[in-house]
Amino acid sequence: MKNFDVSVREVGLRDGLQIHPTFMPTASKIAWIEAAAAAGVGEIEVTSFVPPKLLPQFLDAEEVSRRALAVPGLTVAALIPNSRGAERGLALGVHKLNFVMSVSRTHNLNNVRREREESVADFRKIVELVKAQPGARRPRIVGGLSTALGCSFEGRIAVADVVKYALLLAEAGADELVVADTVGYADPAQVRAVFKAVMAEVGTLPLAAHFHDTRGTGLANVDAALECGVRAFDASLAGLGGCPFAPGATGNIVMDDLCFMLDSMGLTTGVDLHKLLAVREIVRAALPDIEMHGALARAGLPRNYQSASERAAAAAAA
Amino acid sequence: MKNFDVSVREVGLRDGLQIHPTFMPTASKIAWIEAAAAAGVGEIEVTSFVPPKLLPQFLDAEEVSRRALAVPGLTVAALIPNSRGAERGLALGVHKLNFVMSVSRTHNLNNVRREREESVADFRKIVELVKAQPGARRPRIVGGLSTALGCSFEGRIAVADVVKYALLLAEAGADELVVADTVGYADPAQVRAVFKAVMAEVGTLPLAAHFHDTRGTGLANVDAALECGVRAFDASLAGLGGCPFAPGATGNIVMDDLCFMLDSMGLTTGVDLHKLLAVREIVRAALPDIEMHGALARAGLPRNYQSASERAAAAAAA
Repeated sequence: MKNFDVSVREVGLRDGLQIHPTFMPTASKIAWIEAAAAAGVGEIEVTSFVPPKLLPQFLDAEEVSRRALAVPGLTVAALIPNSRGAERGLALGVHKLNFVMSVSRTHNLNNVRREREESVADFRKIVELVKAQPGARRPRIVGGLSTALGCSFEGRIAVADVVKYALLLAEAGADELVVADTVGYADPAQVRAVFKAVMAEVGTLPLAAHFHDTRGTGLANVDAALECGVRAFDASLAGLGGCPFAPGATGNIVMDDLCFMLDSMGLTTGVDLHKLLAVREIVRAALPDIEMHGALARAGLPRNYQSASERAAAAAAA
Repeated sequence: MKNFDVSVREVGLRDGLQIHPTFMPTASKIAWIEAAAAAGVGEIEVTSFVPPKLLPQFLDAEEVSRRALAVPGLTVAALIPNSRGAERGLALGVHKLNFVMSVSRTHNLNNVRREREESVADFRKIVELVKAQPGARRPRIVGGLSTALGCSFEGRIAVADVVKYALLLAEAGADELVVADTVGYADPAQVRAVFKAVMAEVGTLPLAAHFHDTRGTGLANVDAALECGVRAFDASLAGLGGCPFAPGATGNIVMDDLCFMLDSMGLTTGVDLHKLLAVREIVRAALPDIEMHGALARAGLPRNYQSASERAAAAAAA
């Protein structure tokens, strides 16, 4: 895989679709994955290995994963709620297993009916399972901390709690951590406080950020995280997603706007903005009733816009 | 006037209304001004002293200004395109005259049919006019630099050009400068580059930022400007405004979302978020066809949200 300044990871196929009532046809999901990869998105969370009876949107998890694994160069990730999900991912050979627990006790109890310590114990078992795989088949295992910047039940979350569970997941053997503002409560000052505190404890372990734009602060939070040194961000095309606790609210940060901001800042992502914007049509055709967001899609690129790599090349030639 | 960490200035009555085809009734403008002031907005650009035949939206500039000047504690600002506009503002006794020129030569030629040096000369004459007023009647005179972070004709603007015209307006006698991303091209890296360069040259002269959210980066740019030390921001309620070059695009940064982000960061603005959100109803009732934006208005405040001053009081008591 080529090396870019920032890794952008599409999570719309999982976080975007999971609360949408209409099933996105498998062929459309695959078209979306292939087009996003062709636009330069290097990593996609393609599905969730939850029981299909809980979330029928993901009843095609196996087929979608297999087709995504056939896309050259793409890192294929999938969400896993538990060991059973991990086993499904291992059987398929996906590259990354994204485990998630909530830093908010109430949210974790409501979401997975687990005390947080039980979730950490689950994660330890999953790591054992993963690390028992032969090298070539061994996926990276990711520890995700949801509601790390606020919770619809508890409100603000103590920074010390985020650090505590980040350390526990790191010690359990995570290859990467993701700190998530699941309900879009964060502001840039909080982001700096939380990410600096976590990074001070987990050292060089890769740390990604997962922001929602529920209250308009999503890209401001990206800027703050960039300043802390974070170089991997989740986002969803057209800001798909939303929040079950805030009907009508926007969802994940908009992938297209994220890629524009990063590129405009001179940070390469590998993504071709024109090709990425064109992927929206695949989603629109498949789910005409889904709410799509995105400022770049409305306004278009600035006049005479040169991409980060074009500007770098021009500067090198001068 | 009380002292807050950040000054937020409502510009929707000018920047928001100027491209809207329907006239907002004078009584509604006044209701908006009074309600915004009651919500804690300390400064409002209430109108523009352009010839009414050019922009009929502002044919009530005199009446709106007089009524705004009757609101206790409110700083009343108005845009002035030229000396004639300055004279109208002086006759009324508004507190701030906001002069604007474009850093982009092409934009300045298109907008006011002036070379940039001619605009600087105009500004010098206006400053003389203002400074000839007796002390009690003397307004503050603001030098605004539009298209400072990008131009629909020229694309990227050289930082050196922004610094040059900032210095010329400062030397001409501006009491304050405003650096404006008129068409919403900026990213946080550009904001840091431009504001740091300008601040290094103009010293302690107050410097405000005027951002548009055309491409989704508005609040990220606020965060970057805050880091540079900027403590005054223009915004418009519900993000009214837009861009004549990008139909359907969002306008100024959303005042409601800006105030939420600042307050959440622990920066006091004097604004009561609940009261501010209620002001949207005045605009909606007066202009049912205007496009209103705003993430906070859709999603609501976070659970158990405490304002910056409530948190400060709780911390002091603990």
